Amino acid sequence: MKHLLYTALFFFGVMQYANSQQLKSPNGKLAMEFALQNDGTPSYTLNYKGKTVIKPSKLGLELKNDKKSLLNDFAIIDSKMTSFDETWKPVWGEVESIRNQYNELAVTLNQKETNRQIIIRFRLFNDGLGFRYEFPAQKNLVYFVIKEERTQFAMTGDHTAYWIPGDYDTQEYDYTISKLSEIRGLTEKAKTANLSQTSFSPTGVQTSLMLKTNEGIYINLHEAALINYSCMHLNLDDKNMVFESWLTPDEKGVKGYIQAPTQSPWRTIIVSDDAREILASKLTLNLNDPCKIEDTSWIKPVKYVGVWWEMISGKSTWSYTDEFPAVQLGVTDYSKAKPNSTHGANNDNVKRYIDFAAANGFDAVLVEGWNEGWEDWFGHYKDYVFDFVTPYPDFDVKAIHEYAKSKGIKMIMHHETSGGVRNYERHMDKAYQFMKDNGYDAVKSGYVGDIISNGDNHYNQYMINHYQYAIEKAADYKIMVNAHEAVRPTGICRTYPNLIGNESARGTEYQAFGGSKPNHVTLLPFTRLIGGPMDYTPGIFEMDLSKFSPSNKSHVNSTIANQLALYVTLYSPLQMAADFPEHYNKFPDAFQFIKDVAVDWSESNYLEAEPGQYITVARKAKGTNNWFVGNVNGYEPRTSNINFSFLEKGKKYTATIYADAKDADYKTNPQAYVIRKIQVTNTSKFSQLSVPGGGYAISIIENKK
Amino acid sequence: MKHLLYTALFFFGVMQYANSQQLKSPNGKLAMEFALQNDGTPSYTLNYKGKTVIKPSKLGLELKNDKKSLLNDFAIIDSKMTSFDETWKPVWGEVESIRNQYNELAVTLNQKETNRQIIIRFRLFNDGLGFRYEFPAQKNLVYFVIKEERTQFAMTGDHTAYWIPGDYDTQEYDYTISKLSEIRGLTEKAKTANLSQTSFSPTGVQTSLMLKTNEGIYINLHEAALINYSCMHLNLDDKNMVFESWLTPDEKGVKGYIQAPTQSPWRTIIVSDDAREILASKLTLNLNDPCKIEDTSWIKPVKYVGVWWEMISGKSTWSYTDEFPAVQLGVTDYSKAKPNSTHGANNDNVKRYIDFAAANGFDAVLVEGWNEGWEDWFGHYKDYVFDFVTPYPDFDVKAIHEYAKSKGIKMIMHHETSGGVRNYERHMDKAYQFMKDNGYDAVKSGYVGDIISNGDNHYNQYMINHYQYAIEKAADYKIMVNAHEAVRPTGICRTYPNLIGNESARGTEYQAFGGSKPNHVTLLPFTRLIGGPMDYTPGIFEMDLSKFSPSNKSHVNSTIANQLALYVTLYSPLQMAADFPEHYNKFPDAFQFIKDVAVDWSESNYLEAEPGQYITVARKAKGTNNWFVGNVNGYEPRTSNINFSFLEKGKKYTATIYADAKDADYKTNPQAYVIRKIQVTNTSKFSQLSVPGGGYAISIIENKK
Repeated sequence: MKHLLYTALFFFGVMQYANSQQLKSPNGKLAMEFALQNDGTPSYTLNYKGKTVIKPSKLGLELKNDKKSLLNDFAIIDSKMTSFDETWKPVWGEVESIRNQYNELAVTLNQKETNRQIIIRFRLFNDGLGFRYEFPAQKNLVYFVIKEERTQFAMTGDHTAYWIPGDYDTQEYDYTISKLSEIRGLTEKAKTANLSQTSFSPTGVQTSLMLKTNEGIYINLHEAALINYSCMHLNLDDKNMVFESWLTPDEKGVKGYIQAPTQSPWRTIIVSDDAREILASKLTLNLNDPCKIEDTSWIKPVKYVGVWWEMISGKSTWSYTDEFPAVQLGVTDYSKAKPNSTHGANNDNVKRYIDFAAANGFDAVLVEGWNEGWEDWFGHYKDYVFDFVTPYPDFDVKAIHEYAKSKGIKMIMHHETSGGVRNYERHMDKAYQFMKDNGYDAVKSGYVGDIISNGDNHYNQYMINHYQYAIEKAADYKIMVNAHEAVRPTGICRTYPNLIGNESARGTEYQAFGGSKPNHVTLLPFTRLIGGPMDYTPGIFEMDLSKFSPSNKSHVNSTIANQLALYVTLYSPLQMAADFPEHYNKFPDAFQFIKDVAVDWSESNYLEAEPGQYITVARKAKGTNNWFVGNVNGYEPRTSNINFSFLEKGKKYTATIYADAKDADYKTNPQAYVIRKIQVTNTSKFSQLSVPGGGYAISIIENKK
Repeated sequence: MKHLLYTALFFFGVMQYANSQQLKSPNGKLAMEFALQNDGTPSYTLNYKGKTVIKPSKLGLELKNDKKSLLNDFAIIDSKMTSFDETWKPVWGEVESIRNQYNELAVTLNQKETNRQIIIRFRLFNDGLGFRYEFPAQKNLVYFVIKEERTQFAMTGDHTAYWIPGDYDTQEYDYTISKLSEIRGLTEKAKTANLSQTSFSPTGVQTSLMLKTNEGIYINLHEAALINYSCMHLNLDDKNMVFESWLTPDEKGVKGYIQAPTQSPWRTIIVSDDAREILASKLTLNLNDPCKIEDTSWIKPVKYVGVWWEMISGKSTWSYTDEFPAVQLGVTDYSKAKPNSTHGANNDNVKRYIDFAAANGFDAVLVEGWNEGWEDWFGHYKDYVFDFVTPYPDFDVKAIHEYAKSKGIKMIMHHETSGGVRNYERHMDKAYQFMKDNGYDAVKSGYVGDIISNGDNHYNQYMINHYQYAIEKAADYKIMVNAHEAVRPTGICRTYPNLIGNESARGTEYQAFGGSKPNHVTLLPFTRLIGGPMDYTPGIFEMDLSKFSPSNKSHVNSTIANQLALYVTLYSPLQMAADFPEHYNKFPDAFQFIKDVAVDWSESNYLEAEPGQYITVARKAKGTNNWFVGNVNGYEPRTSNINFSFLEKGKKYTATIYADAKDADYKTNPQAYVIRKIQVTNTSKFSQLSVPGGGYAISIIENKK
């Protein structure tokens, strides 16, 4: 009898899943609890080292035309816990080997009234939590429409946030550092002008969102694997300090058209009491699918120069002629046009850059403004704005390709779409084939201005689908993509490593549009770069633009040493030396660092970090024993104290240090730097002053016998 | 002194254009006056045989973000009158030779405050007026945005109108015949259910709009050459009886993005006191540009059968299996699916149609439902809904092609887009190439349901651009296009004769969806067909659908004789015998007419016509001396009295008459017909009763010696 009872109890105990489930990280420091509230609403909590970092937060999705939605009335009908521990090698990266280790809880929920099932899958890593919704194949849930995703992140207090305003069209804002409670009052000021912008809430912010609690816990909120779904922003309930997901709508306000079986992107929460661990986290990449490209031999990091900054600064123009107020591609006869004297992308100038690239060990040259259509490219909702294959009369595609090839240089293509997404897709195969036919392996694409075909913004599901289409088709053509003004990345470069970059944040160009905050680059790695590398295009040596573009009074808010450091602190497999050869030729000793610095790494150590204040990182150049160190500094002068314990014991190295001069200052004396060489080993210590908006860069080269 | 004065007066008289300009048609019966009103608003008036048909009506465009717009403050700075008289040959048509004769007035207007110029070009033909706005290349008017076009058509009274409600997504309504003043009260009832519909005004109507004044003057309003512009509807001010153009908006309410130099479509007004002249008018074609396709040898009229009606009627399905609630193309393995027993497009059934086509002298077979994706094709806003190249397991593309080829039959391709326009464009090259690779020359395309990528409706500028893109790309591939649910045509088939058809109105399928009014086909030539041929897909012999599709209680509101007549009265170079072989085999003597009737004509004579009541037309088969006559009748029994004076004098012919039996009726006795043969010459007269929803068809074959 007894054993029958025990059997029954066991059976009952097994079949009735506890309404709460726990999960711990492999090292036990993070603990998550999943629980169903009384009305069957799923929720989760996250603790770090025994303290709550995310208070009980609801999960679910509100559906359109569906009285029930997927919000509540759930019961747990299955629960699986597994562990995973694997090491994988990225094609390029901050490190050559990444450990993917987590404990996973997959909870299957059944909605009682509707008999619909969803799975919420949690993966708890040592550095944070990722979770997503999965919609398995089933009869009662096939097609549905998302009105809003209702994923909460309940904050434990009025944290410090490092944020930009939520916006459906741009991320190109300076960061604001404030308490959560202050966001509402500061958001208008934070919304500086942009060619395309659409805010949605006075307390809306974008991800990744960096936070720091009063207790010194760092929290980063983002998403991973944004595919076939709408981009997530966060909206703050600033009474209760609860963030909720706010997806990007289409023109009808719909936030997603979903067909099961499928899944949402991962919602990610990186947690540490050490800011360096946030920067070092590989959680976003680990949550993405493994590489889908079989042969990746054609994917290579690139150091490049190009015809770009001269147009951004106003010294040159993208356009070829001033004669036409408008052009009609295929009709307008450019051969009859009087060329202006300002067209940057002309044969002579481009060859000059090719020569410079070849003489200085660069891989490639980017040219913007090479193709017909720039006279009226922006702001006219022009459908057939570019064809991506017809050069201006003064840009000889074949001759340039031959010249570059003879010098061992690759040309980088430029596809500005002007937000004309249909036009780009119509031409994409021909455009990619044109690239292959003319020796181009990589393309910088752009989506400047409002998305044409109207009503579409930059970040809804329809546009996410487009960016992915461009990446996947590029992979078919063995083409690398660097997409500007596209959605900010979410680790997809693990799956498609031909996505070698995005801008999708406030880049160097804004130094020419009025300047960025001097601590901007101490924030980007904590925010924008969590999802993937940024084509920040650093390396500006002449900070006073009026010196060469008289009507441009903008000033680059950075010292030269800070610019050098960016090649190390702003990780990217795609690095531009953005300034003009003549500016580099003025400071050849400083420029040497840019020539020497690697673009691909086997190891990365974050030595010091505080968002908004400073970052110091040391990276080992892949396939060598050489290291590079970079430090970027914020508003306050600061002495950085590090050691070189990352060097190999027993080896001797020559360190060349490029640092701010004592009297340097990003505003008043940006070009003052000092260079010194010292011998170092792994026991060496290092102390260096960085000025406001300053920093330092160090190349550490192994002494060969 | 005097001659100086005269010179001055002359100079003054020449330079100051009279604020009104007159234009007459070549035969003088139509007279137009263009005039500037006191505030510089352009306007026009139209007289027919000395009587006003269009009262003074304003012209102009309201611009977005432009205080001035292009509405008033104009002065005439140039005025040119020219004449044109040319004959051209269409690739296919109702006639083999078309005379294009008009007097033209081109008025250049300068807006004083803004110094912007527009040209309004008027062409006055013997059968009507066409005019358009032109925006020449100029500094002060390059890019502009249309808020609304404000072209008026001021009616002289409360005319009878033959109308369908204005709608951004469908034209598939039965026509309502009413006074203009009654439109408002009848529009709700007129808006029968449709899979995609968006009305905009209680007095909005679509074009072409047929009108008849109380004095018996027939007026038709439409547009010609709708290219890169938004589709025009008409909105009635029913206090003043003035129609005004109402363009189709995009999701932001914008009605057009315009780049000068360019022009609007032609706004057309066909006028006659003889309804037959409305039907015979070639004004719409004449206003379009000449053929742009150099080699048109691949463009051929087509008589076809197909696997279609069985799905429309509910007897078969487009889908292959009932096992999946949803499919993922490229993932779902159809080879593992249990086929349903209802899939129409299977090899055996298709071969049956090929045999039938070959045995009966048809050119081609259309097959719908041949390709993967039909299980969830509609209503889910599914982006990747079809790939247009992957057949179901039971449709062997190559084998079917070989089989058809061996029998001298062509296969007609089907591309249903489900409104997924971006998906269609992504696949279009591959889809067209697949057609060429597999022997398909013609494609029926469809846009069923709302346009995906949302906010787009079927008829705005963006979509007009898409339909044109599909046609022009098809021409590159030497493919003929028959676009259903697309914008109604506006004569573009002159420029692109590979556009061999559209549906874009309420076709035969509605006879399966509840039925259409029995006089529907006496209206279509006065309305829908003014802009181009319609793939009406007639030839239904079994009017009671429940006989073969038990759950479908719909009844085809037409007699068999009426169905035969449609091959003559509803001109189309693309004619389907839409019913099943077994239904034709039941009535082989009636079917003989469909086998015999031509699809391409050298002459067409409209013998009798009254919108909503009857149409009788005689057409000469191109390249022969044979004629075919068709009569369709409305609600009232009527005796048609015609003569055969169109026959060649001195020749003898055998006329086979297919007519309603005396007791036939579209509702109660639709299949009752009588066939008789008589000998006729050009002096013969003919009298025949047509029943309600009835008609007759005659083949007149020259007696060979």
